[in-house]
Amino acid sequence: MPLSTLASSTFTEKLDAARISALSLAQATTDVKNAALSAVAEQLRANVPRIVEANDLDLANGRENGLAAGLLDRLTLNDARIEALASATLDLVGLVDPVGETVRGRSLPNGVRIEQVRVPFGVVGAIYEARPNVTIDIAALAIKSGNAVVLRGGSAAENTNRVLVDLLQTALDSVGLPREAAQTIDEFGREGATALMTARGYIDVLIPRGSAALINTVVTESTVPVIETGAGIVHIFLDSSADLEMATAIVHNSKVQRPSVCNALETLLVHEGAADRLLPGVLGALRASGVTIHGDARTLSLFPDAVEATDEDWATEYMTLDLAVRVVAGLDEAMDHIRQYSTHHTESIITNDLSNSERFLREVDSAAVMVNASTRFTDGGEFGFGAEVGISTQKLHARGPMGLPELTSTKWLVRGTGQVRS
Amino acid sequence: MPLSTLASSTFTEKLDAARISALSLAQATTDVKNAALSAVAEQLRANVPRIVEANDLDLANGRENGLAAGLLDRLTLNDARIEALASATLDLVGLVDPVGETVRGRSLPNGVRIEQVRVPFGVVGAIYEARPNVTIDIAALAIKSGNAVVLRGGSAAENTNRVLVDLLQTALDSVGLPREAAQTIDEFGREGATALMTARGYIDVLIPRGSAALINTVVTESTVPVIETGAGIVHIFLDSSADLEMATAIVHNSKVQRPSVCNALETLLVHEGAADRLLPGVLGALRASGVTIHGDARTLSLFPDAVEATDEDWATEYMTLDLAVRVVAGLDEAMDHIRQYSTHHTESIITNDLSNSERFLREVDSAAVMVNASTRFTDGGEFGFGAEVGISTQKLHARGPMGLPELTSTKWLVRGTGQVRS
Repeated sequence: MPLSTLASSTFTEKLDAARISALSLAQATTDVKNAALSAVAEQLRANVPRIVEANDLDLANGRENGLAAGLLDRLTLNDARIEALASATLDLVGLVDPVGETVRGRSLPNGVRIEQVRVPFGVVGAIYEARPNVTIDIAALAIKSGNAVVLRGGSAAENTNRVLVDLLQTALDSVGLPREAAQTIDEFGREGATALMTARGYIDVLIPRGSAALINTVVTESTVPVIETGAGIVHIFLDSSADLEMATAIVHNSKVQRPSVCNALETLLVHEGAADRLLPGVLGALRASGVTIHGDARTLSLFPDAVEATDEDWATEYMTLDLAVRVVAGLDEAMDHIRQYSTHHTESIITNDLSNSERFLREVDSAAVMVNASTRFTDGGEFGFGAEVGISTQKLHARGPMGLPELTSTKWLVRGTGQVRS
Repeated sequence: MPLSTLASSTFTEKLDAARISALSLAQATTDVKNAALSAVAEQLRANVPRIVEANDLDLANGRENGLAAGLLDRLTLNDARIEALASATLDLVGLVDPVGETVRGRSLPNGVRIEQVRVPFGVVGAIYEARPNVTIDIAALAIKSGNAVVLRGGSAAENTNRVLVDLLQTALDSVGLPREAAQTIDEFGREGATALMTARGYIDVLIPRGSAALINTVVTESTVPVIETGAGIVHIFLDSSADLEMATAIVHNSKVQRPSVCNALETLLVHEGAADRLLPGVLGALRASGVTIHGDARTLSLFPDAVEATDEDWATEYMTLDLAVRVVAGLDEAMDHIRQYSTHHTESIITNDLSNSERFLREVDSAAVMVNASTRFTDGGEFGFGAEVGISTQKLHARGPMGLPELTSTKWLVRGTGQVRS
């Protein structure tokens, strides 16, 4: 199993240790894994000053390197955010352990009994950027689902992550689980990330979290299985029968509540038969919240307080208070537009027409397809998963919000009494 | 969406057509898809001479190019094999259509109703070699699961595959489904295969079937999601309590019944406390069926009619009448050996010891883990799936025999009455 260009024996030793520790994690009982999570929360609460100190160092470096304000904010861990991390970790204790769940089973005609059960992946890799909270999030989810994790959190958060991983290891050790079940490879820099992406036989699944560029790099360069997360060019279609009040509330919530996340609205499509009834009110409410409207010609004629949209707008995930708006001939043109520009994350139709709502649900090919609901509902917490690994935008293994079961694989247990195949 | 080095517009047109045809396939009812399968069987039966003629051409080319006897056999389609293909296609008619199945669903506290349903992947790609039967197998499974397929069957079977794809297209057309739902890209040669592996946005999942070298190439070079199938270094461990008769029957069946397939036994491990009781009988029966035993020193001392095994033997998938045999100190050493050399396909323990059988089931990390059963049972047909796409040896999405549900993804349907996120 050649590990790419980085043939560093220390790197290989780390992955070997992860693989071996994964055997213990896979066999750990739910009680032991829950004890580990409680210990992680305790460690976080007991080491707030140490975490903040390391984080201050990263923030100072970040400012020196001219990191954007948004990135600096994501990078920041303060007392309140550390407490939120501890509390979220404790929330996992109450969730059902997916490991050991029987997915299906039957007796074959010859008496052989087969049973498909959930098992941990083994070693989960994660590559992310400047978000030290992801270190705890992913590690805690991995522990609960019986997996070891190897983390590449990026140089911008290196000092914070070093402390967090140390706390994770102390917590694991305190309940008798191997420290190597949570490791960082930040010290190997970019080469380490590349080696992680090609560590076949060591990494069972790799999850990238962060910018579209980061995710694209991981998907393109990895030879280990990847779960693609993230990018969302999210659409709402206002059908001709849409209720004005409902349309205004849902569009406003989808765009404004948290514009920087993947389930936020980016493009609004409106039925031409309802454009003059709906657009002034819907767009006026957005404008009042500071949203810039990028409209096609017909939108501009109904709402002059808009800038002209170009083709590029339809293909843009703004993640800001900007919205592309287009008037379409009807459901078919709306679905054509979605087919062309959607990243298959979330789309919603606002309508009172049954046959249109059913067609939209059936024909739109996205992780979440909605009727009369805010696109912001595509979320592990909202779906009742209690915790979220990320939102998968691929079709293999997991699609949409990923919870604990999505961090497991299965195996078949086959029990015979001497049967052979004839 | 750049399509690698092969920027041929014809190639892109084919993938575009596949993507568009996938929309129709996804919406097709079970009745229409079943009618298409019946039409495929009809076309096969009505065109036996035409298929055989094209196949003869491939066989002649194969002989000229010095293809091995085994490959020529795999390449061959005769009357009986064509009838078997037609009959297997008709068998799919009786299977449950996975599309539309509700996997789970609930009402959120705010009244929003969420439901996870099975949907087709969209476009399934397949890369395989010199096995024209796979053309019909994969296409038929894809049709039933509502997917379009793009097939790369290799130059050795090019003439046969061209005819088979033509018959598939005629069958699709006859029931009103788009012909482009089943296409070959054989005419683009190796460059076409490379382009297929990097056709992000066009191919939703790529399935390689064939040699370890082919699978490795696909896994390493693909940027589209891949399901890895195949390689099996399969182990049986004879525990100290193993019944001699049962051990002999299961080992013989696992090794001899069909040695060239992935679920055939490759390495036998024997508890040292039972080696002299079990090995002479078990290995004698194998020898009588022409199996060459590659044994470690202790095996040689008990069964002199064996050749000395080297470390390479433990890491070899023979796929022939050869078997590696090693005496181990007990269950732990057996599981250590399996951990080091297994390809995580299938392992079986023969024992009457409950705690050992439970430890083996729990701790061995393979797609199928067995007690007192032949390893040959890891098979979609045996598991009652009715048909098999292949046997996944990866942990993402599918593990072990893959049936129709494994050719689907899911999506979340979200039905609200105006809810927004607070």
